[in-house]
Amino acid sequence: MPKVKVLSAPSVRRLPSYLLITRAALEEGLQYISATRIASELELEPIQVRKDLAITGIVGKPKKGYPVEELVNAIVHFLRWDEVNNAILVGAGHLGSALIGFPGFRSHGLNFVAAFDNSPQKAGTRIHDVPVYSLDKLQEKVSEMKIALAVLTVPRDIAQDLTDLLVSAGILAIWNFTNFKVRTPEHVVVQNEDLSSGFAMLCVKRRIMELA
Amino acid sequence: MPKVKVLSAPSVRRLPSYLLITRAALEEGLQYISATRIASELELEPIQVRKDLAITGIVGKPKKGYPVEELVNAIVHFLRWDEVNNAILVGAGHLGSALIGFPGFRSHGLNFVAAFDNSPQKAGTRIHDVPVYSLDKLQEKVSEMKIALAVLTVPRDIAQDLTDLLVSAGILAIWNFTNFKVRTPEHVVVQNEDLSSGFAMLCVKRRIMELA
Repeated sequence: MPKVKVLSAPSVRRLPSYLLITRAALEEGLQYISATRIASELELEPIQVRKDLAITGIVGKPKKGYPVEELVNAIVHFLRWDEVNNAILVGAGHLGSALIGFPGFRSHGLNFVAAFDNSPQKAGTRIHDVPVYSLDKLQEKVSEMKIALAVLTVPRDIAQDLTDLLVSAGILAIWNFTNFKVRTPEHVVVQNEDLSSGFAMLCVKRRIMELA
Repeated sequence: MPKVKVLSAPSVRRLPSYLLITRAALEEGLQYISATRIASELELEPIQVRKDLAITGIVGKPKKGYPVEELVNAIVHFLRWDEVNNAILVGAGHLGSALIGFPGFRSHGLNFVAAFDNSPQKAGTRIHDVPVYSLDKLQEKVSEMKIALAVLTVPRDIAQDLTDLLVSAGILAIWNFTNFKVRTPEHVVVQNEDLSSGFAMLCVKRRIMELA
């Protein structure tokens, strides 16, 4: 059993897309946005959009839709993206570098303050202005900077060892891109990211399209 | 409405995890693997595992579970990962380079044959042994190599222009990492990947943990 079960996981996963659309509407100067409009932009059913947005506590107005500014705030507050989450990156390869530089993460409160890598050539350099340290500095830096969040982008054969190191350093949340299901104590939450999942979806869509 | 609706999307998304576990069991020399064992490794309910695996057409044996080799084959065949999918990468930045080098993709039949980038310094180089060309060679190479699949890792402001280029070059499936919802004609399938979704999940898990 998962330690933390998110009941409305597919809804939570769609919130960032809603946020993107609603922020664009805000920039356009719209006052209200309807579930129908959001649904058509995302190729969903309006009823799904209403159900998803309900988890943030917002209620739309009949015939008008959602007040745009309120909707942005509701999503951002629900996800706690209105707070800054200082984070470290463990494994400063291509994927790690991509994540540090990913536009949008900063507006989600994700703020990388340090990266760690076991390659001696990388220690002392900077990636997108974030300093890279050698792994043996990890424990010291995490406790010094009071970091709770770590993004793990290392080869899968060292994923568990580094997870153990993160846990003993006091990390409370791990975003795991290694496709190895790391074990953690009860109090540490893990989000496993498997890039193959999206590829599986694409392959099944092609199959359906070819059979159609 | 989506052009192609995958009814069992969450099940499809979990298939790569099942495949990983079943392949490990095969290497261990196991003959059968139970839904209970798979469930416990992935922190799911056994009934969910049975339901997910049923989409591949496999049936487990009472008390024994699934024949391991058959299960591997059923998943691989359902996803068509037993066929080679030649693909191009568009946008050879950090994320694109990470995807080209991602271990595991090759065993899913994903075979990058060329990358394209608008930076003149990148054209003529190789990433993980895959040649990088300038964007103006895209149309010619896609038709010459008869490529159907493209992975899009460019900045979001040029996502639609490049999608139009891919479509006119004859691409039939696009794995879109740009977080811009690109428009395509009916016959082209798109899988949108939004890395923020996983971060939203992690944030909600932390929230639940803190409130517990």
